[in-house]
Amino acid sequence: MKKPFYRQFKPGRIFMGRLHYGDDLLESLVKFCEDKKIKCAALWLIGAVQNANLGYYGQKEKKYVSCASLNKKLEIAGCSGNVSRKDGKVSVHCHVVLADYTGRAYGGHLLSGTMVFAAEFCIRELKGRDLNRVEEKQTGLPLWG
Amino acid sequence: MKKPFYRQFKPGRIFMGRLHYGDDLLESLVKFCEDKKIKCAALWLIGAVQNANLGYYGQKEKKYVSCASLNKKLEIAGCSGNVSRKDGKVSVHCHVVLADYTGRAYGGHLLSGTMVFAAEFCIRELKGRDLNRVEEKQTGLPLWG
Amino acid sequence: MKKPFYRQFKPGRIFMGRLHYGDDLLESLVKFCEDKKIKCAALWLIGAVQNANLGYYGQKEKKYVSCASLNKKLEIAGCSGNVSRKDGKVSVHCHVVLADYTGRAYGGHLLSGTMVFAAEFCIRELKGRDLNRVEEKQTGLPLWG
Repeated sequence: MKKPFYRQFKPGRIFMGRLHYGDDLLESLVKFCEDKKIKCAALWLIGAVQNANLGYYGQKEKKYVSCASLNKKLEIAGCSGNVSRKDGKVSVHCHVVLADYTGRAYGGHLLSGTMVFAAEFCIRELKGRDLNRVEEKQTGLPLWG
Repeated sequence: MKKPFYRQFKPGRIFMGRLHYGDDLLESLVKFCEDKKIKCAALWLIGAVQNANLGYYGQKEKKYVSCASLNKKLEIAGCSGNVSRKDGKVSVHCHVVLADYTGRAYGGHLLSGTMVFAAEFCIRELKGRDLNRVEEKQTGLPLWG
Repeated sequence: MKKPFYRQFKPGRIFMGRLHYGDDLLESLVKFCEDKKIKCAALWLIGAVQNANLGYYGQKEKKYVSCASLNKKLEIAGCSGNVSRKDGKVSVHCHVVLADYTGRAYGGHLLSGTMVFAAEFCIRELKGRDLNRVEEKQTGLPLWG
């Protein structure tokens, strides 16, 4: 068991707010972080979406296989993730749990193309050295290091 | 893409604790916030419930349609949300993911009538101007603004 | 409705980082907390696992019934929990929501034996009096008190 790769941070700004009907969920978060010059953060969100576009990463294939384009209205039962840097730009990495009108739950990696019905976020900025994503060989993912 | 509506907050008190067997999950959180005079916060919770009452918001109907009254014992696989104000009172808005004994997951908007088996919460108060919920026309929901 | 049992905390260190491919998810978090001498914290995590071992607590039986040994590669759609003390040692209590390649979601109590593919964590230390787990009679669980 190798020691985790980590950084220690100081608390930064705290934002709580909401995205608007019809916005792209992921792109809105990216845009907000760009506007506010948030380089590193932890984030959470609840709400509902008009449809969803979820990614599933093929661990053998080493690429995202879009697993579920859900063309239905769903509650966001949970959404959490982080903000860091990739290629000098904001990288928002969120995973999401959704639920349909029967209560059935779906989950995955949040992709663009997921349209907001209503969404309430909390973003807690973290101050410290930049956390940068670079391709990691064993997983094929852009990971911190 | 419109700019999100948001407020910036300063960190307030941090509470970690547990609710009791047989308590109403949502009502207990509301009561705790009232007792502690928490006006704004982010919150998280894990645990288990004796049953669940989940809401699903009909995006066309513009009202909650109770989607799932689950009369079974469930793990709280995740629960997150926020505390703000509505009509001068505490408003606790939580979404929840539950799991049954097969691991099958359910999700939705936490409603009253969900009874605690055990529940561990973390509530991080946010200090700043009040965030108030008022009816928003496009969604029919009481949203911040 | 009894008053919750709770403690009030001050913010401590904040860590964000990642676990490594092949690590045991739960054991790695325990080890990290031991190494960093984290006695109390809230934590969140997203990523993917190579398999999963989830617990479901039998509320009548008053013991964990391993509900789901999932021998498949899954996204961690959400994972949250806390760090406290039990018998003078670190106790990491996490619940997790997982999703398979179809987007189907699973959830439960995170057990040892869940192997990391990639995992990004945020751990926020809480400073204050120790929170200790002791067996609670009504539930049979080691709860704070």
